[in-house]
Amino acid sequence: MAGSTTRRSIVRMPSGAEPARTPDDLAVEAPLVLAMDGAAIATLMRTPGHDLELTAGWLVVESGVRRPDDIAHLRSCREDDTDRVHITLRAAVCPPRPRAFVTSAACGVCSADLLDLRPLATSHPHRTGWRVDRGVLATLPDAMRRRQKAFDRTGAVHAAALAAVDGTVTAVREDVGRHNAVDKVVGHALMAGELPAQDRLLVVSGRVSFEIVQKAVAAGAAGIVAVSAPSSLAVDLAREYGLLLAGMVRGDRLNVYAGDDSIS
Amino acid sequence: MAGSTTRRSIVRMPSGAEPARTPDDLAVEAPLVLAMDGAAIATLMRTPGHDLELTAGWLVVESGVRRPDDIAHLRSCREDDTDRVHITLRAAVCPPRPRAFVTSAACGVCSADLLDLRPLATSHPHRTGWRVDRGVLATLPDAMRRRQKAFDRTGAVHAAALAAVDGTVTAVREDVGRHNAVDKVVGHALMAGELPAQDRLLVVSGRVSFEIVQKAVAAGAAGIVAVSAPSSLAVDLAREYGLLLAGMVRGDRLNVYAGDDSIS
Repeated sequence: MAGSTTRRSIVRMPSGAEPARTPDDLAVEAPLVLAMDGAAIATLMRTPGHDLELTAGWLVVESGVRRPDDIAHLRSCREDDTDRVHITLRAAVCPPRPRAFVTSAACGVCSADLLDLRPLATSHPHRTGWRVDRGVLATLPDAMRRRQKAFDRTGAVHAAALAAVDGTVTAVREDVGRHNAVDKVVGHALMAGELPAQDRLLVVSGRVSFEIVQKAVAAGAAGIVAVSAPSSLAVDLAREYGLLLAGMVRGDRLNVYAGDDSIS
Repeated sequence: MAGSTTRRSIVRMPSGAEPARTPDDLAVEAPLVLAMDGAAIATLMRTPGHDLELTAGWLVVESGVRRPDDIAHLRSCREDDTDRVHITLRAAVCPPRPRAFVTSAACGVCSADLLDLRPLATSHPHRTGWRVDRGVLATLPDAMRRRQKAFDRTGAVHAAALAAVDGTVTAVREDVGRHNAVDKVVGHALMAGELPAQDRLLVVSGRVSFEIVQKAVAAGAAGIVAVSAPSSLAVDLAREYGLLLAGMVRGDRLNVYAGDDSIS
């Protein structure tokens, strides 16, 4: 099992100073497959550590498990480069109920495929030769914030936006779910005939998980600008697909986790 | 379709002043059921507004939809008090692929049950007669923060904790996913034989969505203390199950969204 943090080489752009390449600690994000009776029942994208507690707590919420001995056995292992926990409940305990979703993907142990975590293939290249000014990147979270109507009223709602590389914010959408806010701006761009969004940056109000990068890749966006930091897997995926990924934007300071060659 | 914000009567506890009951604007959280070929394929807990964009964006990420005319038709309606979007894709377009989960619940239109959004029944009452000092509530986010090791290194990871009503923090867990952090502390309590957690408060580093309250109910926790604000549905569920719900804790100020009768 991996640790809970990991190190990547990033480019820090401090206020009024030259960019500097330095190591940075990131929270690890990695899949944990839960399996029961020979089949995968869920894949949790989690930070490694306390995996058995995570499994037990997930069972409390999703099944009839309420006491320690409701769980007959939890066995953690690593197969095909993926962490797994095999669950055995006492016979009398209600198993995880079907909720919105029940799994269709089965476990490696159980001779079926692991989930494909990659985005659907996109036929268009990302970042087609343009460059973006670091000063523009730093303005984007505030530019989005100024158009957040629900945030003004509630003080607590996520937002996503699409912005051109000249800093023009073309769409802002809000939602209690940060994934939904991204889906809304991507849907807006689709309906406006603006996909793939090769000349657009996706701006998000929170942290960047793997799934946010998946969404940016599917939309063909050129990059992501986030108020907060990305996970390890988000950085790795952004690098693999050639996206710009900037985060921890605070005033005119920011960190560049991927694609720093397109910043001028 | 409901609006994106809604109003609830809450109790504000300002710094050095008497508590006051006032109206407060909350972000609405409500289910949107996506249906295709007569079956529900996903339920998104979202803030109402731009539902067709949300559906279109979800399809870009989850299916082969890349151009506006890949979608033949989106029809939104409200049935059984729930918002739905019925999706028709062009025949040549890849439908949403099975990912970690595929749905088992079907649509009202399609003569099957809507998802049950309630937590599994718990046999124990919540909040069994104790009272908690408002000063103690206000200390809990900082007490949790001091034990966040991964946050110290990365500046970006969620946390959850369990705390006694005297302010003692009994467990802190971190994760890139806020739901996972809660599952980890709940699992810890299960394994320690401490469920139902009737005398414990669940402390969370972020916002409180419906699912966080579901998890607290399943664990039998007495209440939730959050750094940020809850959604409308989170407040409604906390009130229904008799949980204390405090949020927007900033220094010694806080808001009480449910269960203010147990604060002294």
